[in-house]
Amino acid sequence: MDGSSLPKRDANFVPLSPITFLPRAASAYADRTSIVYGSISFTWRQTYQRCCRLAAAIQQLAVSRNDVVSVLAPNTPALYEMHFAVPMAGAVLNAINTRLDAPNVAAIIKHAEPKVLFVDYQYITVATKALQQSVSMDMGDHRRTMPLLVVIDDIEKPTGVTVPAPSGEGDGHHQLPVLEYKQLVARGDTARHPPRPVEDEWDAVALNYTSGTTSAPKGVVYSHRGAYLSTLALLLQWGVGHEPVYLWSLPMFHCNGWMLTWGMAACGGANVCIRAPTAEAMYAAFAAHGVTHMCAAPVLFNILLEACHEPLPRTVEVLTGGAPPPAALLQRVEQLGFHVTHAYGMTEATGVAMVCEWRHQWDALPPSERARLKARQGVSALSLADADVIKDLKTMESVPRDGATLGEIVLCGSNVMKGYLKDPGATEAAFRGMWFLTGDVGVIHPDGYVEIKDRSKDVIISGGENISSVEVEATLYQHPAVQEAAVVAMPHPYWGETPCAFVALKREFKVTKEEEILSFCRNKLPHFMAPKMVIFVDSLPKNSTGKVQKVELRQRAQRLTKTPTTAAVSSRL
Amino acid sequence: MDGSSLPKRDANFVPLSPITFLPRAASAYADRTSIVYGSISFTWRQTYQRCCRLAAAIQQLAVSRNDVVSVLAPNTPALYEMHFAVPMAGAVLNAINTRLDAPNVAAIIKHAEPKVLFVDYQYITVATKALQQSVSMDMGDHRRTMPLLVVIDDIEKPTGVTVPAPSGEGDGHHQLPVLEYKQLVARGDTARHPPRPVEDEWDAVALNYTSGTTSAPKGVVYSHRGAYLSTLALLLQWGVGHEPVYLWSLPMFHCNGWMLTWGMAACGGANVCIRAPTAEAMYAAFAAHGVTHMCAAPVLFNILLEACHEPLPRTVEVLTGGAPPPAALLQRVEQLGFHVTHAYGMTEATGVAMVCEWRHQWDALPPSERARLKARQGVSALSLADADVIKDLKTMESVPRDGATLGEIVLCGSNVMKGYLKDPGATEAAFRGMWFLTGDVGVIHPDGYVEIKDRSKDVIISGGENISSVEVEATLYQHPAVQEAAVVAMPHPYWGETPCAFVALKREFKVTKEEEILSFCRNKLPHFMAPKMVIFVDSLPKNSTGKVQKVELRQRAQRLTKTPTTAAVSSRL
Repeated sequence: MDGSSLPKRDANFVPLSPITFLPRAASAYADRTSIVYGSISFTWRQTYQRCCRLAAAIQQLAVSRNDVVSVLAPNTPALYEMHFAVPMAGAVLNAINTRLDAPNVAAIIKHAEPKVLFVDYQYITVATKALQQSVSMDMGDHRRTMPLLVVIDDIEKPTGVTVPAPSGEGDGHHQLPVLEYKQLVARGDTARHPPRPVEDEWDAVALNYTSGTTSAPKGVVYSHRGAYLSTLALLLQWGVGHEPVYLWSLPMFHCNGWMLTWGMAACGGANVCIRAPTAEAMYAAFAAHGVTHMCAAPVLFNILLEACHEPLPRTVEVLTGGAPPPAALLQRVEQLGFHVTHAYGMTEATGVAMVCEWRHQWDALPPSERARLKARQGVSALSLADADVIKDLKTMESVPRDGATLGEIVLCGSNVMKGYLKDPGATEAAFRGMWFLTGDVGVIHPDGYVEIKDRSKDVIISGGENISSVEVEATLYQHPAVQEAAVVAMPHPYWGETPCAFVALKREFKVTKEEEILSFCRNKLPHFMAPKMVIFVDSLPKNSTGKVQKVELRQRAQRLTKTPTTAAVSSRL
Repeated sequence: MDGSSLPKRDANFVPLSPITFLPRAASAYADRTSIVYGSISFTWRQTYQRCCRLAAAIQQLAVSRNDVVSVLAPNTPALYEMHFAVPMAGAVLNAINTRLDAPNVAAIIKHAEPKVLFVDYQYITVATKALQQSVSMDMGDHRRTMPLLVVIDDIEKPTGVTVPAPSGEGDGHHQLPVLEYKQLVARGDTARHPPRPVEDEWDAVALNYTSGTTSAPKGVVYSHRGAYLSTLALLLQWGVGHEPVYLWSLPMFHCNGWMLTWGMAACGGANVCIRAPTAEAMYAAFAAHGVTHMCAAPVLFNILLEACHEPLPRTVEVLTGGAPPPAALLQRVEQLGFHVTHAYGMTEATGVAMVCEWRHQWDALPPSERARLKARQGVSALSLADADVIKDLKTMESVPRDGATLGEIVLCGSNVMKGYLKDPGATEAAFRGMWFLTGDVGVIHPDGYVEIKDRSKDVIISGGENISSVEVEATLYQHPAVQEAAVVAMPHPYWGETPCAFVALKREFKVTKEEEILSFCRNKLPHFMAPKMVIFVDSLPKNSTGKVQKVELRQRAQRLTKTPTTAAVSSRL
């Protein structure tokens, strides 16, 4: 067959983009609810019209193809609409973590160079501080222009918020031109500025900064193609089905809400927006809107459990990730009426990279066994072309499917990020040939399901043996006195590295001795895996999203080993 | 953002292809059942290994990239395996309709020019005849070489079949080199011939000939990209979920089994293969394998209903298409335990183009109303970028969403075919700008759901009014004497065209007069829509897949109108 005789046409080769889900929803699901937020609600027809107008208004602000538009907002209708309107204007959406402080937001603004910054009224102080700081970072860099500032007032209960005059010297450079979101939506001229068609599916659709447990935040760039494929794959593997009612407990700034921002348009679901995932807001949503689906990090389960012990009126499907849900917690939330699916994702994989697809045959197992199976990261996302666990990055040899041999999880597929913005060094380091290196270390079980054991940076290599810091930590957590524990490598003159434990004790156990912890571990673990030193701390250092900063602990452990007598340094810091 | 700074890499830009689902299934679903056929069953690991070996063996037969490999077989494991192995060899799969006779198969072979023809043992006679005929069609064309013939013996109960000596003059040109499928799978050298990676997702993966109600069969070419996207979209919109057990009642040669050949690998489902969809085979499969999903043209419902009136042990999800299921039939099969989803597809749309997505609020409606809603073709497939109903192909104006105004259904998206093989005229005629023209005429209901009313060729334009031949036929079927009815346009000196009815009467009503039928219609229809003439026939002409050949009736109607007095020609033909 002569393959060249049937070239691509506009009718049969359309760039893949998640924004195409919106006009389709406006046609197929026109009068169904798209967004609910307090007393406000929209249909898909309305959401499409609003997004078209907002996209026109953004174009009228002289935003061009591939320009960045940043936003600092909680899970409001505005942030949802921007997921479509910004790419419909040809621009790249940069949703910033609202938990960051002004210096961190400033660093992102300086790096991303947005043309426009949208800010929810609750975050104006941090945003204006960050803008000032990003300018002062740029002393002498005269090419930079301040982004336009668009304030997003509350759509349900407008506050009439205004932007405070900047506290700086007021030299005009700091004077912020300020627009209001509602006015932009109203004034968008769709006749003169219709949505820009996606010219190339490889174009960027979003820029998401990693929270970075080990280094400075990096700007992860998603393509339209990757976001489209990742969206379809997650809807399929989570089994979202028709007419879901999705509660926005997960921040949309986390990997664009694990693709479910775009995903709800694809399946015509209803988005229930809440400003913060409080127990009150979530239970009110269950009662009022018949929520069927939500995402939750395990920490949210505690919030849900503390507020209510009554079974839910209907099963709520919960997709969880970030950390595997502990067995006891899983059992308790499932008794309440939540049905939990565990997935594994990362910013660089455009959201979900693996899903622990449940098998019917596991239904009959005891709860602890079900929890153990569900805590595994699972099988690769359908949007990946391939995934593997590599024992040795030199030979690229895979681990056996024995559930024991550690290796690095590697991914390959069109949902893997384009790369890190303006960081060719980090980008090159993240890829090796056909693989993206996740930096996560895991095993493959005989049934093909992958389970993560550690971050590759956190693996301790002692006398040639790989030690999973997570396994040692799990042992430490079994000790009744341990409140928090983290294990990192400590240089050792003979073994190369040995495990060093950082431990915060429970208040009532503050007198516990290092030797007691060390012998406890030696009784439970192979000798080479047991920590050789315990450093007591009041609490472990954590970043803005609550992840333990192992890089800081590792630096401490490096310094400490310069003192050869361990007894001398094992004191409370 | 500088878009050019992050170029595509092997790790993040992988050509989309449905064959990538197979190695993933071999990893993620290794020990789950892939295929069941009588007493034979395979796991996904085994199916992948067998397909790799078959792909290697096909490459050893000097099959190159983009070569066509044809197959004539029922729903056996071999035909399923070929859906992966042939593209894994870089070739294009051409699964031929087993209901065709030798001349039709010969026409396809002559047009598709396969390098290899695989034939199930039951179809050796028709295949050898067809090969001889395709050669004789080529008198004087010395470039053509005969395809290699591979016989597929029954894998469960081998017959040791041999190919009969050709009945022709035996001049060596007719001597068929014959191989056996099992031997090919055994001898494939995967070390020397590993699966060929897909170089370009626009490459052809399959070539499917339309059954053609109105013209010669055309060879529809699918891209890897289109098949991949169409597969994911159907799994999602049908809601196939995890661990389906899929019964192969629909022939795999129909649009590659509406993508479910590749789809079952994507979701790790089990394929239950049967040689023919007899009631016995289907009910045995329900009982033995816990079938969860199947596809069925409405005619299959009759087979299922006639055999059994006991409720099924578990609900079987049925995807139906080709013709909307009549209300009474729908009600009866759903009472048995089948849950029916209606979809609309066509070869040119790489399978399903629309799905009648069910809405929960319709559950409470009376059965007849539910059937009416379910008979609609629905909303566009997720793999389409756009779909519309166009009132006028000159202005490309859309119809209003009124459920009444007729227009042509048009599609746009990456699952629209590449075009027709070696038929630039038909290819150009099928496209207009950004649209593929389906040739189907329908309406859009206020809720956005599309309903087909007719084929565009079958619409009768009388005095500027569009008349749906299907609606007139529906009225004719209400007459107690009518067994079969078809309505086509007949030239009219004043109105341009008027409806002409072809009617086959039930045996017991053979004395019915034309005037009785005409007045019956005039009482039920607007006058301009009522037929102006009735031609009685014993039965309507049909093609190999049972579709009424309106082109033949239209030719007759054209001739008949040369006689001005209708009474003279309204006789039984």
